[in-house]
Amino acid sequence: MYNPQLNKHGELQHLLTIEGLPKAIVNHILDTASSFVSISDREVKKVPLLRGKSVFNLFFENSTRTRTTFEIASKRLSADVINLNIAASSTSKGESLLDTIDNLAAMHADMFVVRHATSGAPFLIAKHLNDTKQHHVHVVNAGDGRHAHPTQGLLDMYTIRHYKKDFTNLTVAIVGDVLHSRVARSDIHALTTLGVPEVRVIGPHTLLPGGLEQMGVRVFTDMNEGLKGVDVIIMLRLQNERMSGALLPSAQEYFKSYGLTPERLALAKPDAIVMHPGPMNRGVEIDSAVADGPQAVILPQVTFGIAVRMAVMSIVAGNSGSDA
Amino acid sequence: MYNPQLNKHGELQHLLTIEGLPKAIVNHILDTASSFVSISDREVKKVPLLRGKSVFNLFFENSTRTRTTFEIASKRLSADVINLNIAASSTSKGESLLDTIDNLAAMHADMFVVRHATSGAPFLIAKHLNDTKQHHVHVVNAGDGRHAHPTQGLLDMYTIRHYKKDFTNLTVAIVGDVLHSRVARSDIHALTTLGVPEVRVIGPHTLLPGGLEQMGVRVFTDMNEGLKGVDVIIMLRLQNERMSGALLPSAQEYFKSYGLTPERLALAKPDAIVMHPGPMNRGVEIDSAVADGPQAVILPQVTFGIAVRMAVMSIVAGNSGSDA
Amino acid sequence: MYNPQLNKHGELQHLLTIEGLPKAIVNHILDTASSFVSISDREVKKVPLLRGKSVFNLFFENSTRTRTTFEIASKRLSADVINLNIAASSTSKGESLLDTIDNLAAMHADMFVVRHATSGAPFLIAKHLNDTKQHHVHVVNAGDGRHAHPTQGLLDMYTIRHYKKDFTNLTVAIVGDVLHSRVARSDIHALTTLGVPEVRVIGPHTLLPGGLEQMGVRVFTDMNEGLKGVDVIIMLRLQNERMSGALLPSAQEYFKSYGLTPERLALAKPDAIVMHPGPMNRGVEIDSAVADGPQAVILPQVTFGIAVRMAVMSIVAGNSGSDA
Repeated sequence: MYNPQLNKHGELQHLLTIEGLPKAIVNHILDTASSFVSISDREVKKVPLLRGKSVFNLFFENSTRTRTTFEIASKRLSADVINLNIAASSTSKGESLLDTIDNLAAMHADMFVVRHATSGAPFLIAKHLNDTKQHHVHVVNAGDGRHAHPTQGLLDMYTIRHYKKDFTNLTVAIVGDVLHSRVARSDIHALTTLGVPEVRVIGPHTLLPGGLEQMGVRVFTDMNEGLKGVDVIIMLRLQNERMSGALLPSAQEYFKSYGLTPERLALAKPDAIVMHPGPMNRGVEIDSAVADGPQAVILPQVTFGIAVRMAVMSIVAGNSGSDA
Repeated sequence: MYNPQLNKHGELQHLLTIEGLPKAIVNHILDTASSFVSISDREVKKVPLLRGKSVFNLFFENSTRTRTTFEIASKRLSADVINLNIAASSTSKGESLLDTIDNLAAMHADMFVVRHATSGAPFLIAKHLNDTKQHHVHVVNAGDGRHAHPTQGLLDMYTIRHYKKDFTNLTVAIVGDVLHSRVARSDIHALTTLGVPEVRVIGPHTLLPGGLEQMGVRVFTDMNEGLKGVDVIIMLRLQNERMSGALLPSAQEYFKSYGLTPERLALAKPDAIVMHPGPMNRGVEIDSAVADGPQAVILPQVTFGIAVRMAVMSIVAGNSGSDA
Repeated sequence: MYNPQLNKHGELQHLLTIEGLPKAIVNHILDTASSFVSISDREVKKVPLLRGKSVFNLFFENSTRTRTTFEIASKRLSADVINLNIAASSTSKGESLLDTIDNLAAMHADMFVVRHATSGAPFLIAKHLNDTKQHHVHVVNAGDGRHAHPTQGLLDMYTIRHYKKDFTNLTVAIVGDVLHSRVARSDIHALTTLGVPEVRVIGPHTLLPGGLEQMGVRVFTDMNEGLKGVDVIIMLRLQNERMSGALLPSAQEYFKSYGLTPERLALAKPDAIVMHPGPMNRGVEIDSAVADGPQAVILPQVTFGIAVRMAVMSIVAGNSGSDA
């Protein structure tokens, strides 16, 4: 399959999805991130790796939280950052997506961090840049529709590796609204790539997509069953708009069946860690006693996320385009 | 009383309010600001004091003007600045204020500049950071509800000191909507701390809060009486929403009774200075002839405000948290 | 005529309009831009010319595209950039335009990049700064009403010079909605200044202003006639709001009469270049086969635009105000 994220030497020139990403590249990203974690503790938290480079945050869908993490990562790499909330600008003037991209590339952009409500938009942009030989611009997917959120998947892997060291003896459960979650999809691909022997998803039928078994995943609709003996629990955010719809009876009902309480957490291994991509709905998918408890590693995820994004950005910026 | 803005060595680790701030700290801020005033005149207006530090402008309430002054102050200190308009983001996704704070702190933030419509919000944030031992993050209050606007109070003190040298022989009048003004409250505390013997407030009964006399303030409802012989006049902005409400008959009526005209200004000492926190309503609380006249020091206030904010930010960043 | 953009030595201290700008200054801007074009190709795309300077993007009218080009130009000159969307802030609090300007100038601003829906606003601001002896602040017009868009005009000249070398033997056609176009106005002035012997405008009667002949321009309503033998075609954007109004029957009708197709382009000289200020309406004023064809220089215009803005900003910043 054509994969525009690798150049002809098999190096990462764009980060679009974890699906199909070689294990060596995933590990290289995690190793690089490790060197950046220590930088954030220094008095001066900057390295000059992207000095003079122009990073454009192209957010076609609003996400202050994700945009902020990329903005910080860029600035700590000494890049110049331009924030563009595209929803409100050119596209409203009828310009096509690819004309906007060509225009920004012509300003000698070095990197586009792309968030888009449509699955595949960052792929389309990267392919267009490759096709038109605009190899100086690198694309990083910051979340596209229900498809992928690869930097979230990578920071989740960084977090698991930090606490569990070895992936090859783990049982990992992903809990909640898997159907609408790009995080779940990216996590499943990453866990599989890194050799996790058992990946489980837990959720109500209405929030589980088809085809999970074919991805090598064990499916549970009973949370108590699914949590038994797991090493890692990845909770997903339940989006507000689902709660009052046809898919779910109510937030209270959901919490009763799929909320992570201390009692349920006790079913997992005693040293199991609890993760969440944020923002949390306390009392909906997770109990405050768990969110603030000793097994939660939700805030370390955020810290590692900056380092992982710095790693991704510095790696793709260092790899030349397809023709080089 | 528990005061989260001082660490256990009595140093300023957060700036939340001028109330209860030791005189020595106020003077230290003003002295430090003095050294920054000259920097703004240089060809290169930057000092590397906060290089590599991440300053987050957390504006839960919109204020372009105040945000701009903090953004400039941060950049002149060489910090990386991240602007977050929080009203439009995480909190709308149902995340709690303190979860948002913990998340940003986990990104290795160094400073939160907080503007919030609710009185006490910056206090709550600082207390939470202290309680959870997140001592690397410093909070600067950029205005909370009707409670405090300490950097405005400090820049007002800087301005008075610049023009009048000595606080201990001054009569200062604060005129207008004291009831809704966080500026008035901060100014009264600062003037008292610095030993101003006579602080007056002037305004209609409906715009004066109770308890002013207990704060050591003389109250006047007749402006001509109140201005007699004063050295400093601090005009307050009359907010538009008050003008058509039950509290006031009309902008014209207000100007007739409490607008600062050249005739009224003549009642003050001949060398009295006129201050205003901006933005001004010309023809409502102040006559253009006064605003643009030789006694107005309204634009120097703005200039000094940048230096005062640089001073506050560099001082709190240099003081370690409660446990250190 | 009083021209606030030149200081008493005849140097450019503000850029407000190309009208009346001496040819030597236009050429100096284009020559300076030439040196910046190569910088954008470097690994580190920054020069320290405006280090420590504060550039304010004052956009009273929203324009993400133009704001972005100035933001990039500023950052590549190492300036600190503050973006202010003024529509949403101070002016809504009833503060006057000039009070806002005085306030920002008091923060030791070095440059205002001004976009305003009202023709003449940047002129008014520059005149006020000169009159009040605030000579440290320079104004660059980023588009005012229907009046002028001088940096667009200058980048168009840069582009023509790049491809055609000599202006004195050219025929240039400007096509479309000349009536509402500040770009057309700036281009006509620039072309005339640089000695282009024949400037044509082409468009329907309803979209052509009066007085064009007096500007030394030949007017055509028949596009096939107007394009014959031209060296340069500058297409204008047809604004959506015109299409459904009284001025035009429909976008389809417009394209039939004034859309630039390959057939029409063949009427021009074989080496004619096609320009467009963007964003393009494909299928309305320009056919995709032309927009993406070998004669289009639309993306190089964007690249040159960054260099031209760097040139303008560094030149005005280097020239002292009227009294110096």
